[in-house]
Amino acid sequence: MIAIGERSALAGGTPSSSRGLGIGSEPRSSSSPKPGFVALSDLGSVNSRLSSKGSIRIEAMEGSRTVTVSETDLNTNGHAGNLGKNQSLLSSIGNSTNIKWHECSVNKVERQKLLKQKGCVIWITGLSASGKSSVACALSQILHRRGKLSYILDGDNVRHGLNRDLSFKAEDRAENIRRVGEVAKLFADAGVICIASLISPYKRDRDACRALLPDGDFIEVFMDVPLQVCEERDPKGLYKLARAGKIKGFTGIDDPYEAPLNSEIVLTHKGGDCDSPIEMAEEVISYLEEKGFLRA
Amino acid sequence: MIAIGERSALAGGTPSSSRGLGIGSEPRSSSSPKPGFVALSDLGSVNSRLSSKGSIRIEAMEGSRTVTVSETDLNTNGHAGNLGKNQSLLSSIGNSTNIKWHECSVNKVERQKLLKQKGCVIWITGLSASGKSSVACALSQILHRRGKLSYILDGDNVRHGLNRDLSFKAEDRAENIRRVGEVAKLFADAGVICIASLISPYKRDRDACRALLPDGDFIEVFMDVPLQVCEERDPKGLYKLARAGKIKGFTGIDDPYEAPLNSEIVLTHKGGDCDSPIEMAEEVISYLEEKGFLRA
Repeated sequence: MIAIGERSALAGGTPSSSRGLGIGSEPRSSSSPKPGFVALSDLGSVNSRLSSKGSIRIEAMEGSRTVTVSETDLNTNGHAGNLGKNQSLLSSIGNSTNIKWHECSVNKVERQKLLKQKGCVIWITGLSASGKSSVACALSQILHRRGKLSYILDGDNVRHGLNRDLSFKAEDRAENIRRVGEVAKLFADAGVICIASLISPYKRDRDACRALLPDGDFIEVFMDVPLQVCEERDPKGLYKLARAGKIKGFTGIDDPYEAPLNSEIVLTHKGGDCDSPIEMAEEVISYLEEKGFLRA
Repeated sequence: MIAIGERSALAGGTPSSSRGLGIGSEPRSSSSPKPGFVALSDLGSVNSRLSSKGSIRIEAMEGSRTVTVSETDLNTNGHAGNLGKNQSLLSSIGNSTNIKWHECSVNKVERQKLLKQKGCVIWITGLSASGKSSVACALSQILHRRGKLSYILDGDNVRHGLNRDLSFKAEDRAENIRRVGEVAKLFADAGVICIASLISPYKRDRDACRALLPDGDFIEVFMDVPLQVCEERDPKGLYKLARAGKIKGFTGIDDPYEAPLNSEIVLTHKGGDCDSPIEMAEEVISYLEEKGFLRA
């Protein structure tokens, strides 16, 4: 099947000129660059990008096939088949229901007003046993008490569900983090303060997740706890196994942890027997307040 | 690296006896069956599942390796290394900060109280041009006006982000739907009314998504619009291309649409020139009200 309804891309016939055009009628989020309903201006602009001769490639995004049709299948507006005629049908549907794309979907700003907060991603990175989860929990508690909606994405949940198809090969580990980043982005778009808690040892992977979000909406929190402290804590006894060579490629032991250089927030080990996750979380809360994330 | 912090599974040495055990200290969502902090009772029960001799496999969920350690690496409680000792350390951290797992994380019920609604998944299925997106939009608008938080997951968004690694092969199309189902589940767990709008033509794929949610929380909405009507609408001219053989495997033309037999809601075509998405959305709203989703 081709589920063109989800999205189609109409692109130039040559790879270099191919540029996607959303002509799907499915709703898009506010962060999506294009409206879901067909816009004549969009089609016009795509038409201008088409080569004057040759074939057009239509890609069905939630479908299965790539089809090549000649330009004779397209009318002079660059529409496939009777698309031009149906433009007015779509508009008519819009008018009759007072629903047109650009005013149809509830957008991020509206959701944020409802929630009285701004969606963002708080990405907590650090060694095993550095206290990421404790800070994430404390943070979610404080936010909840203040009437703010947060959601924790943890590697465990995600490995059991969304990412259960992934193995532990290097590329699958990167894919694990990529998907968490993509899901975190959706939560932020929904207006939620999304707390992602993953060791995420490589700068490249973290930066790729950062790049998915608008500037300022990805807040990296580095749990700057010395390896020695994490190893002394060793709540699961796994550092011990790693030192004994029973586990290979353990972050901090025989695989690197690339410490962030420009994190928005660095939570440092104060040297006490155990740092207070709540105190650390309060540092994050202060940042969120200062940057305006806790109001619409 | 092994990022055991995210989750580890301690399982019996033989595949048939292998059962996962969450011993990670990372936070879990309320829907997760096990607490994040190590529970002695859990470890005890796992110990009883271990074979009396032989090796134990430890899988690092957000790590990279599967390691086999002999039982001599485990203490008599079935703990890895010094895990038994560190139980008390974990407890101590919990006491000092008043954060223990079971009371640490804000759970689904608490989020629902905050939002004054219940999280769920509204899964809209139907042929291309059956009006899924219009209903999804209308629904999100009505919910927003009533102060409820919803979020639309559409194939388009997801194909551009989370699922951009997927092709249009049969298995990738199934994976596309699986991932949307998993993400929808996370949104529902966050307390959000998640609206997924996908053709999703195969019963198997839809049912797999349903199975991810607690009973009653997956609400299938079938856009029961005759193929002829969809084809007449043909807003993108793609049915025409499919009829002309330019697109192969088009749902409803030369690929099946397996109509749901037991949808919670069936929205039927009334025979008018264009049905009102708002009227259809109101039917969904009535269902949500009746089932108590619009209050905490």
